[in-house]
Amino acid sequence: MTPRRQSGRAPVTSPAAATVFTTVLTQGPVSRVDVARRTGLSSAAVTKASRPLIEAGYLVEMDSAQGGVGRPASPLDLRTDREFFLGVKITDRELIGVVTDLRSQILVTKFHQLPSRKVDAVVDGVSEMVTELLAESKAYKQRTHCVGVTVAGDVDRESGFVRYSPFLHWRDVPLAGLLAEKINTGKTDLEITVDNDVKAITVAERWFGNGVGADSFALVTLGTGIGCGLVVNGGVVTGSHGVAGEIGHIPVFGDGPLCHCGATGCVEAIASTDAIVAQARTATGEPGLTMEEVITGARLGDAALRRVFARAGVAIGRGLASMANLVGPERIIVSGEGLDAYDLFADEIRETFATQAFGAAAHCELILRPLPFEEWARGAAAIAVQTLFIS
Amino acid sequence: MTPRRQSGRAPVTSPAAATVFTTVLTQGPVSRVDVARRTGLSSAAVTKASRPLIEAGYLVEMDSAQGGVGRPASPLDLRTDREFFLGVKITDRELIGVVTDLRSQILVTKFHQLPSRKVDAVVDGVSEMVTELLAESKAYKQRTHCVGVTVAGDVDRESGFVRYSPFLHWRDVPLAGLLAEKINTGKTDLEITVDNDVKAITVAERWFGNGVGADSFALVTLGTGIGCGLVVNGGVVTGSHGVAGEIGHIPVFGDGPLCHCGATGCVEAIASTDAIVAQARTATGEPGLTMEEVITGARLGDAALRRVFARAGVAIGRGLASMANLVGPERIIVSGEGLDAYDLFADEIRETFATQAFGAAAHCELILRPLPFEEWARGAAAIAVQTLFIS
Ligand SMILES: [Zn+2]
Ligand SMILES: [Zn+2]
Repeated sequence: MTPRRQSGRAPVTSPAAATVFTTVLTQGPVSRVDVARRTGLSSAAVTKASRPLIEAGYLVEMDSAQGGVGRPASPLDLRTDREFFLGVKITDRELIGVVTDLRSQILVTKFHQLPSRKVDAVVDGVSEMVTELLAESKAYKQRTHCVGVTVAGDVDRESGFVRYSPFLHWRDVPLAGLLAEKINTGKTDLEITVDNDVKAITVAERWFGNGVGADSFALVTLGTGIGCGLVVNGGVVTGSHGVAGEIGHIPVFGDGPLCHCGATGCVEAIASTDAIVAQARTATGEPGLTMEEVITGARLGDAALRRVFARAGVAIGRGLASMANLVGPERIIVSGEGLDAYDLFADEIRETFATQAFGAAAHCELILRPLPFEEWARGAAAIAVQTLFIS
Repeated sequence: MTPRRQSGRAPVTSPAAATVFTTVLTQGPVSRVDVARRTGLSSAAVTKASRPLIEAGYLVEMDSAQGGVGRPASPLDLRTDREFFLGVKITDRELIGVVTDLRSQILVTKFHQLPSRKVDAVVDGVSEMVTELLAESKAYKQRTHCVGVTVAGDVDRESGFVRYSPFLHWRDVPLAGLLAEKINTGKTDLEITVDNDVKAITVAERWFGNGVGADSFALVTLGTGIGCGLVVNGGVVTGSHGVAGEIGHIPVFGDGPLCHCGATGCVEAIASTDAIVAQARTATGEPGLTMEEVITGARLGDAALRRVFARAGVAIGRGLASMANLVGPERIIVSGEGLDAYDLFADEIRETFATQAFGAAAHCELILRPLPFEEWARGAAAIAVQTLFIS
């Protein structure tokens, strides 16, 4: 029998337990001896911290050739199906939802169109998504206690408020509260956590992706918005006031266009998908141009369109250099839907970065990788996994 | 009898010992029970980690009303005179040197003019400074094992190289090695550590200043150079490639002037002391203007000079906002010699920061405080204290 976890009652209650759990989560199976060596905790502290996690069913102790159960050399591993997690990413057009296990493996993925960006419609949509995801398996329904919901913009995880989401045109929406009210009718008792979408993906990257083992890295997403998740000194940078990683709102051109955020010359005002389309329409005098047409035209060699991408590349390169000069990450992973057009501004990004990076900051590695849509929802589920750590 | 510490043999050898030592260093006297509570270590781990530090004479155990020596409630404190530390800051005109105790209290301060910025002259000057500082007391001579030396620019602490220092016009100077060779003749056996000057002050601020207790903060220095020390997730950001906190080289104006670093539109190219003077000379057509005259003229209301400061304030405000949007520090401390003219651009800094900060990042507190010259050398000494932690 697996004991039921009460919503809001996290099993990981001490810093030592968090260290042990994270080590097994990201590197398991791993023996207590190795956990101690990798974390600097004493063997006694590892044993003490792992006991309640084993009792609660999150960790399992495996038999080992070198010793029996309870011996320092017997490996600890995750019981990945001890608990399931839902992740829902809200975009301006659709919802992407997943069920994952404890190690963030995706078990189910669903896409729902959003009829409207209004708060009520989105709350209804997420609620339906949650119901459908849970209905996929009795085990999910029994052993899911937390839902992570992510959205682009300024999100205050503590209070559950979306303070500003440009693409939804939301300001100060108590999203976590509204969702909890809508979802937790009947026997359901789910904890809802909301967070910024890029921060969430960075958590997933750090635990289970390219970030494992890196003391510092940045994940930059290009697209409708331009965001960035940062890991520094081994932890995700969350910002003391809830804002961090807003590389899209770094001012890089003094005479730059007004940004939707109210500032001028932001990277996003020059290099987001919308900004590129708007500049392309102005440059060509064709007000109906779509992003696909802009990309096709530029690839066919249209000089005006190529200049739009070149300028976007310069803005992105200046933003990346600002980050490298300030924070000095080991590597920067550039991703997102905007990567489709990467061939059109890759040279400008790299050249600008090389010119504007200060000294050895230019050694920071730039990695490009695609980011499938379900990865966004997986990030949201990783945020749900984090609630295990909050007492 | 105090046992002699061999140069290069640090007494703090485990992560738990580092945690205990840092806690007593910054918050002592503090009981083992409180150390355990504040750090999450077990009482047994605290006792085990503190024992060798007590034996080596760095920590002392005080009697307490609640228990005798060796009891969990008896407080631990630093033996501040267990070891002394030298700090030398190199500016373009002079050397500032201090002797500090273990808690970074300044015991002696000395200023030396630099006859030249050439490497040999600076190495000679630092060597003489070290000799003079040690000669101040027999105790210093006996119980000083490490010297911290700081300089503005791109410094690689690991290799001891100054990779690029714009104000000294140095590139790839093996400063730590040259100093060790010059200083360690005869019976002297000092470990030399070099680092960036602003990073060093940030270490001192974090342990003993405004940064105590803040999970994240930034210290920005205005002056001949514009630098920044960053603490994020409880640690100083050092940069994976050795570069971090270069807020002076964030590109904020697309059409901005060429910077000495090779990039364009850097904050430093617009708002450093030199840049302000250069722009003032151009604006007034008076090639002999000094910074003092520029400040005086602007205070008397000269419109052209006021515009130069206003533009510098905008550049600084944009740089601060970039940092707040990316990293989200709890507070930003703005300091440095450039603060003398603060009244001339304070409004522009604050207004620009407010406009360009994204959402709640605008809640980041801006603190202005003066930074006496000896604080720079104290920072260098704090770098020396850090060698206690490196085995
Ligand atoms: Zn903006
Ligand atoms: Zn520069």
